[in-house]
Amino acid sequence: VRAGQVIGDWGNTRLRLWRLESGAVADRREGRGVAQTDHPSAALAAALGNWQADRIVLCGMAGARNGLHETPYVACPADAESWRSRLTTFERGGASVAIAPGLASSDGRADVMRGEETQIFGAIANHPHLASGTHHTVLPGTHSKWAVLANGRIESFRTFMTGELFDLLQRSSLFAADGEAAEADEDGGFSDGLSRHGPLSALLFEARSGQLLHGRSAGWARGFVSGVLIGAELATMKPHGSVTIIGEPELANRYSRALADRGLRPAILDAEQCTIAGLRLLDADA
Amino acid sequence: VRAGQVIGDWGNTRLRLWRLESGAVADRREGRGVAQTDHPSAALAAALGNWQADRIVLCGMAGARNGLHETPYVACPADAESWRSRLTTFERGGASVAIAPGLASSDGRADVMRGEETQIFGAIANHPHLASGTHHTVLPGTHSKWAVLANGRIESFRTFMTGELFDLLQRSSLFAADGEAAEADEDGGFSDGLSRHGPLSALLFEARSGQLLHGRSAGWARGFVSGVLIGAELATMKPHGSVTIIGEPELANRYSRALADRGLRPAILDAEQCTIAGLRLLDADA
Repeated sequence: VRAGQVIGDWGNTRLRLWRLESGAVADRREGRGVAQTDHPSAALAAALGNWQADRIVLCGMAGARNGLHETPYVACPADAESWRSRLTTFERGGASVAIAPGLASSDGRADVMRGEETQIFGAIANHPHLASGTHHTVLPGTHSKWAVLANGRIESFRTFMTGELFDLLQRSSLFAADGEAAEADEDGGFSDGLSRHGPLSALLFEARSGQLLHGRSAGWARGFVSGVLIGAELATMKPHGSVTIIGEPELANRYSRALADRGLRPAILDAEQCTIAGLRLLDADA
Repeated sequence: VRAGQVIGDWGNTRLRLWRLESGAVADRREGRGVAQTDHPSAALAAALGNWQADRIVLCGMAGARNGLHETPYVACPADAESWRSRLTTFERGGASVAIAPGLASSDGRADVMRGEETQIFGAIANHPHLASGTHHTVLPGTHSKWAVLANGRIESFRTFMTGELFDLLQRSSLFAADGEAAEADEDGGFSDGLSRHGPLSALLFEARSGQLLHGRSAGWARGFVSGVLIGAELATMKPHGSVTIIGEPELANRYSRALADRGLRPAILDAEQCTIAGLRLLDADA
């Protein structure tokens, strides 16, 4: 297949590639994540298969130290232009490969992102109202990213290990093996967790104690832990005004519910559409 | 061996038994933790071996739902007398078996302990100055317990999942595989972590970003995470005045260093000595 242009988002756990025809997505393929291979070049070639690409534009962990080719971090505040100007381009296997830089915070804390900036700049490109004024955006996930946009720039951002902690805690002592969760239990636990404030290590233990003392189910405890973790994000970031969630539907709905509790009505944007829009910004620059 | 009296602390990960002769410890044996067996009676018999006990006094997870025999929680505030009065005694294999109750908090939060109360009441028995006035005690570990003592009562307590979170995080993305830690790095990371305040899920990610942006080592990151977790305990409990650490030397020293940073000079008591003293309080009641 004469593929011409291919764009892709290479995360730790998966690679997604889209083949463009006349600038529109014509096909989609998946491959291994950066953390799942010691040979990124071979993994990319395997995922491309019979696509004969002239140009490949990638974001995410493709630019990490253990990725295809390390790319720099651009310091915040950053707009799409300054980000795009730091694109790293090289030849590989007959194709021109371009990899997006990541972003680094510049407020004294050490914080980084790789890939989410592409989604945010894509969201701005697809939704021009985000290009002016102040907007809070959240990209829920393994490492949830909250970013503040000011007139189309990513002004600052902060990472929360919410998804990773939640996954690690599945292997902890918190969830007694007492069968499957009733959905209503989990919803109730989520509300209870959202309303609690305090140190995470202490609140998490309440998930266990609630089962021991108050007959709570493991499903309630899972919801509670999720509520506590997302509640900590909201208590720290204090989003207000215009809030946009960029994410997969299930997780986006959970954040939407948490934000609604605070009287906010967030917009939800599809993560994949934003990724594609962001990558096309880079492709257009070629 | 005619053992007469045996006392024991049965935790999730190990069982420790001490054989008493004329009220003094004459021998020591270990066995499986409660979480490591589906047959607590058989595990206890295996650990006792050829000790022919007339009376066995146990604390800890022996009284948990999945232990030898479920015992109640005594609500705080609780003194040694009210705790001792809830001892659960029954016959098993020709011996009289007594299991200590646990403690539950009574300030609206769900919180429990099983075993640490025995150490605290043992500490008070061995160190009479703890029986009057106000004292802050901490028992570092998988689930760190902070208790406030008032005139010999355990007034209130709070659990932090510090050790469990630290162990879980060893399996996370935080510590890039870049070889072993230099001890100085880990010490420096610990100080850096102690001095940071904020939401745990965000601070933890700084351990990773510090490696990516500032060339920090994995050893520094481990120290940083430890400092952040212990710092969260101190920021919440705000210990002052008389502070006592009941724990194993290495962990006790780490807490001692954190408390010294706040101008406090904690006393360190040996955990095993306190456990034995607490169990002997229960044995004396027989």
